[in-house]
Amino acid sequence: MKMILDVDTGIDDALAIAYVLGTPQIELLGVICSYGNVQARQAVVNTRKILSLFRRGDIPVICGAGHPLSKERFEVRPLSMKVHGMDGLGNTFLPVDEEEIKTDMDVAKFLYDTATRYGEELTIVTEGPLTNLAAAVKKYPDIVNCGIKIIIMGGAVCVEGNMTHCAETNIYQDIKAANIVFSSGLHCTLVGLDITLRTLLTRNETSEWRKTKTAWGKFLADMTDYYIAFHEEVHPEMNGCALHDPLAAAIALRPEFVTIFPCCLKVLEEGPNEGRCVLDLVAMNQGTKNIGLCVDVSVEKFILEFNAAIKRLLKISG
Amino acid sequence: MKMILDVDTGIDDALAIAYVLGTPQIELLGVICSYGNVQARQAVVNTRKILSLFRRGDIPVICGAGHPLSKERFEVRPLSMKVHGMDGLGNTFLPVDEEEIKTDMDVAKFLYDTATRYGEELTIVTEGPLTNLAAAVKKYPDIVNCGIKIIIMGGAVCVEGNMTHCAETNIYQDIKAANIVFSSGLHCTLVGLDITLRTLLTRNETSEWRKTKTAWGKFLADMTDYYIAFHEEVHPEMNGCALHDPLAAAIALRPEFVTIFPCCLKVLEEGPNEGRCVLDLVAMNQGTKNIGLCVDVSVEKFILEFNAAIKRLLKISG
Repeated sequence: MKMILDVDTGIDDALAIAYVLGTPQIELLGVICSYGNVQARQAVVNTRKILSLFRRGDIPVICGAGHPLSKERFEVRPLSMKVHGMDGLGNTFLPVDEEEIKTDMDVAKFLYDTATRYGEELTIVTEGPLTNLAAAVKKYPDIVNCGIKIIIMGGAVCVEGNMTHCAETNIYQDIKAANIVFSSGLHCTLVGLDITLRTLLTRNETSEWRKTKTAWGKFLADMTDYYIAFHEEVHPEMNGCALHDPLAAAIALRPEFVTIFPCCLKVLEEGPNEGRCVLDLVAMNQGTKNIGLCVDVSVEKFILEFNAAIKRLLKISG
Repeated sequence: MKMILDVDTGIDDALAIAYVLGTPQIELLGVICSYGNVQARQAVVNTRKILSLFRRGDIPVICGAGHPLSKERFEVRPLSMKVHGMDGLGNTFLPVDEEEIKTDMDVAKFLYDTATRYGEELTIVTEGPLTNLAAAVKKYPDIVNCGIKIIIMGGAVCVEGNMTHCAETNIYQDIKAANIVFSSGLHCTLVGLDITLRTLLTRNETSEWRKTKTAWGKFLADMTDYYIAFHEEVHPEMNGCALHDPLAAAIALRPEFVTIFPCCLKVLEEGPNEGRCVLDLVAMNQGTKNIGLCVDVSVEKFILEFNAAIKRLLKISG
């Protein structure tokens, strides 16, 4: 299958990229970056660092939205720096690829051209705010008729939020963009905190990676241990770190890992539940189903799949 | 099938009772009352008014909890009086049955005795706070092994609340009781606002009832029109009134009307989401499934079923 990743790299974005690179069934056609965990430009730098490290500098990395649709700028939250480190990659400070970053490429056009070229073969996995995809829908409304699939890491439907009491970060960052995508007619699957918070990676796995004694293994282990340490501090009951972004990427290939409830969701744009994803009951009564909501996950199967991909990657690269 | 209704009568409780009386497949063994829409004693009065009107004064009506488990008293909210009228039955002021109300019957014992006697044949449908059922679980823990089924009208899992921004009224009234019931091991199905807000009754139906020119038809039509008028004022987009309680009763007989997601739910007892029903992710990872959560409903089928029962009842009583 062919995939585009839309990331705000970020530790778990980096792990999602690593998962995809270690999965031969997935052909990664390009990585689009946006603001979110870090600034968009930093997301590009981080993504290229990772691709270079794993000798996949051939994959195009495109700088997308630097701020939400309805705002002029974006500031990284202090909490994001704590979760992901000063560099966004757990303070691993990988060497920077010196090549100039191209920022003049039209992300919406790239998405549309790739969608029309590959149609049903293509899955776009969004790991950050939905700004890039919403912009493509607005500029090329016909993109919804190409047969592409969208997997969205975002939302907290049956659990509390991680940005506010009820809102998940990726959705909250650009609520209007989320509603544009949800109501567009695109074939969307929502991978929210409802299931991602259940998929935990522990130091057992990272110590395995470290044992490879490669630069690649050490980088992934150091970066992930930083992420686990944050989780240990804030969620000691979790006993590991949540694999939000890798799970979304894996579901693109392995939909059988999840139980999906076809429904109609919207994001509340104001009021005390601003940013909360809720059922649109009027639309439900009209038979509209715009989203496949993931409500359950085979945690063990996914963790096995993820570990296998990372081990494959480390061996390949080593 | 055999049923016990646990009500806080209330207009939609009254409609649920009417639905059950009009459904020959259901044998109503008794009605337990609690505080909620009205005081418990008023719920008894209202329930007996309805049973007398439909010539079913033979069905036992038992006065249950007058306040939540962890409180000493209960005050009816001003909003409840607005929604359900000063008498709780849409200001229809039906004549009161003068017989003395027995309040010395032990509700927990009644529930336990009936559960042990009928086992799997018995369904308890709760239309108010879960205080009575929680008290039975605490006093007779063995009740969970009788094979009985529980249908709970309560909760707002994927939509906003109607008591607070996130909490549904029946659950919020006694959060501790809800958690006792949820975690008890009883076979529970949750019929929340997620689906009840989609089941709408309009003035078309009530005008049909009125045409019967019977005291029964006029009472049901007057009471329900009062309820519809409230909905028209507060939710003009809904175009009718929600059949919260009748839907829960109907699902006991017709589980095929709903799509159920087996999961583990808990009610948050504090914090900004106090009273919100959320997935218990730790328990989900342990494979615990304590609730069948209703996520979708065949609205048309239910409305047909409900109307048929009411018409049957009006004809029988006329």
